[in-house]
Amino acid sequence: MDSRVSLLASLLPEFADAALIVSQENRRYFTGFVSSAGYLLVTRSEAYLLVDFRYGEAAQKNAENCKVITFKKLSDTLCGIITENRLKKIMLEGSSFTLNDAAKMDSIISSVGAETVKSSELDKIISRLRIIKTADEVEKIRKAQRITEDSFSETIKLIKEGVTERDIALELEYKMRKKGADGISFDLIVISGKKTSMPHGVPGNEKIKNGDFITFDIGAVVDGYHSDMTRTVSLGNVDNKQRRVYDTVLTAQLKGIDAVRDGVSCGAVDNVVRSYIDQAGFQGRFGHSTGHGVGLEIHEQPSVSPDNDLLLRSGMIITIEPGIYLPDEFGVRIEDMVAVTNGGCINLATFPKELIIL
Amino acid sequence: MDSRVSLLASLLPEFADAALIVSQENRRYFTGFVSSAGYLLVTRSEAYLLVDFRYGEAAQKNAENCKVITFKKLSDTLCGIITENRLKKIMLEGSSFTLNDAAKMDSIISSVGAETVKSSELDKIISRLRIIKTADEVEKIRKAQRITEDSFSETIKLIKEGVTERDIALELEYKMRKKGADGISFDLIVISGKKTSMPHGVPGNEKIKNGDFITFDIGAVVDGYHSDMTRTVSLGNVDNKQRRVYDTVLTAQLKGIDAVRDGVSCGAVDNVVRSYIDQAGFQGRFGHSTGHGVGLEIHEQPSVSPDNDLLLRSGMIITIEPGIYLPDEFGVRIEDMVAVTNGGCINLATFPKELIIL
Repeated sequence: MDSRVSLLASLLPEFADAALIVSQENRRYFTGFVSSAGYLLVTRSEAYLLVDFRYGEAAQKNAENCKVITFKKLSDTLCGIITENRLKKIMLEGSSFTLNDAAKMDSIISSVGAETVKSSELDKIISRLRIIKTADEVEKIRKAQRITEDSFSETIKLIKEGVTERDIALELEYKMRKKGADGISFDLIVISGKKTSMPHGVPGNEKIKNGDFITFDIGAVVDGYHSDMTRTVSLGNVDNKQRRVYDTVLTAQLKGIDAVRDGVSCGAVDNVVRSYIDQAGFQGRFGHSTGHGVGLEIHEQPSVSPDNDLLLRSGMIITIEPGIYLPDEFGVRIEDMVAVTNGGCINLATFPKELIIL
Repeated sequence: MDSRVSLLASLLPEFADAALIVSQENRRYFTGFVSSAGYLLVTRSEAYLLVDFRYGEAAQKNAENCKVITFKKLSDTLCGIITENRLKKIMLEGSSFTLNDAAKMDSIISSVGAETVKSSELDKIISRLRIIKTADEVEKIRKAQRITEDSFSETIKLIKEGVTERDIALELEYKMRKKGADGISFDLIVISGKKTSMPHGVPGNEKIKNGDFITFDIGAVVDGYHSDMTRTVSLGNVDNKQRRVYDTVLTAQLKGIDAVRDGVSCGAVDNVVRSYIDQAGFQGRFGHSTGHGVGLEIHEQPSVSPDNDLLLRSGMIITIEPGIYLPDEFGVRIEDMVAVTNGGCINLATFPKELIIL
């Protein structure tokens, strides 16, 4: 064993002999191996990756830092390992085991006199590891961001009166995939006009009109790592109110980025952004958090939200994405991903943020 | 309240006063409203859809058969409803609540003197509702299937020596989306040559060669409903062995479809297909189930697998998808979706199954 798996083994709390991991992202994080199903059992001295017949051959070739076992019947294989290693208490990954799956696991594990431990402790330990990105991880996120920006800049050229949100979203995704993305970070948000007041609107058959704001919340996935960026552009000129809202969001976003550095709390960064928006006269119009971590999942720790006293640390990657949403009128959101450093942060997005009028 | 929600309310077991549903598909099934997050609480007399700020406006406009409440703090809103309705026992959706989410819910719900019930009972009740499709649901699945077939028939024209699996898969997806699919049913499988021996192969940069079988396992989503179809085609002529395997799979598939009707068990259908393949000399080469239900999820109840004594009922939609896989040589799978009727079934796929030689 070495590296991530051995770190996890050394961090196992006293009340557990082993950790049982089922989430795809965490199996990938610790073993480098990608599969839709599998079980990673980490004891203090060994790690076992249990996969079914579909993945046996590939796992033997590609999984790292673990012993690969292809099972015919999970319960037999798992009970064998538990007995052999005299494991008594096995901590389940509380963020991934469903109640039904945990009940099945209880019955398997108790059949050999061991028991499951249900707590969120394992998730917290893994989150503390994953929250700090290595250079290799940052590089993958950068690559995903590059693909996103290249595709975005080609796609906005296609916007003209009458094209639909849905068609633009599709062209954007197609370009990302053609440029080598494994997939998209989430269902791409491309919304226009009044719909921009909904932070999570869904692209529809609405035709883009002159004077509309168009909000793009988009990202690509490369080697499992996500990117996340939001830009609001307009088709044709905007009115004074639109301009004022845009400028307020942009200033708030820049202030947020400026506040990021190792040692500052997530809540403090959120407060800088939120209080600026409030003081500009838009109290209550910024209803979500300022940002979130990004990595193997699109939303991961830390949450850049009010009252979160977790301190930012060098190596974390977070989004800064304030918005102002005026129901039945319009909305604006601007988002970058930044990597926290000792003295501040590095912006992983390079796409301009001045209002682009198409 | 009416229809699905009221049916669920009437089916609540005696040991529960309410059901708390979090899965996206089930929230959609009961309310028609789509969102990435939310809580549907169904009591014996009322249904409440609780959504956060992002979805409030859209849910108010679009959710059906429920009272929409936009919460600021979930615990406050939920506790208010529990107290007002004097709910004592709230059954959680065991297939969707993770251990961590259930623990949080325990602490919220116990704070007002109520308790959670953890069992797989709610999942079973919902599955019994969802397993029988209404005409409206069948129409959506048909539409998804039509898009799949139209896109497939255009895409196979692009196949020639040297194109990659990945490019074909991307073109196919693009066409489906252009024709109005919300998305794809699953990562499309387009694999060629030796890779066709892997039932779940992933499209790669492999170039398609003359004499290759090419397996397409594909589907589109329309209004949340999935379609699923597999065809194996060849580029150029095939040899005798390929032809024999193809014909065996096709005959097995036709026999399977022929066995489907209201009142026959899933296991009996599987047995018809499997025993034919075994007797044709390919024992052990058909390593997966004969089929599965399709609907809001790509894999749902019932499982058409050995020993499943669940009886097929009119209104169920299942796949019939036998395959023969010869490692390091090639594989063939052919799959249709059929709707069970009293006297037999309706094949929702119309695309030909005779071997297409491109």
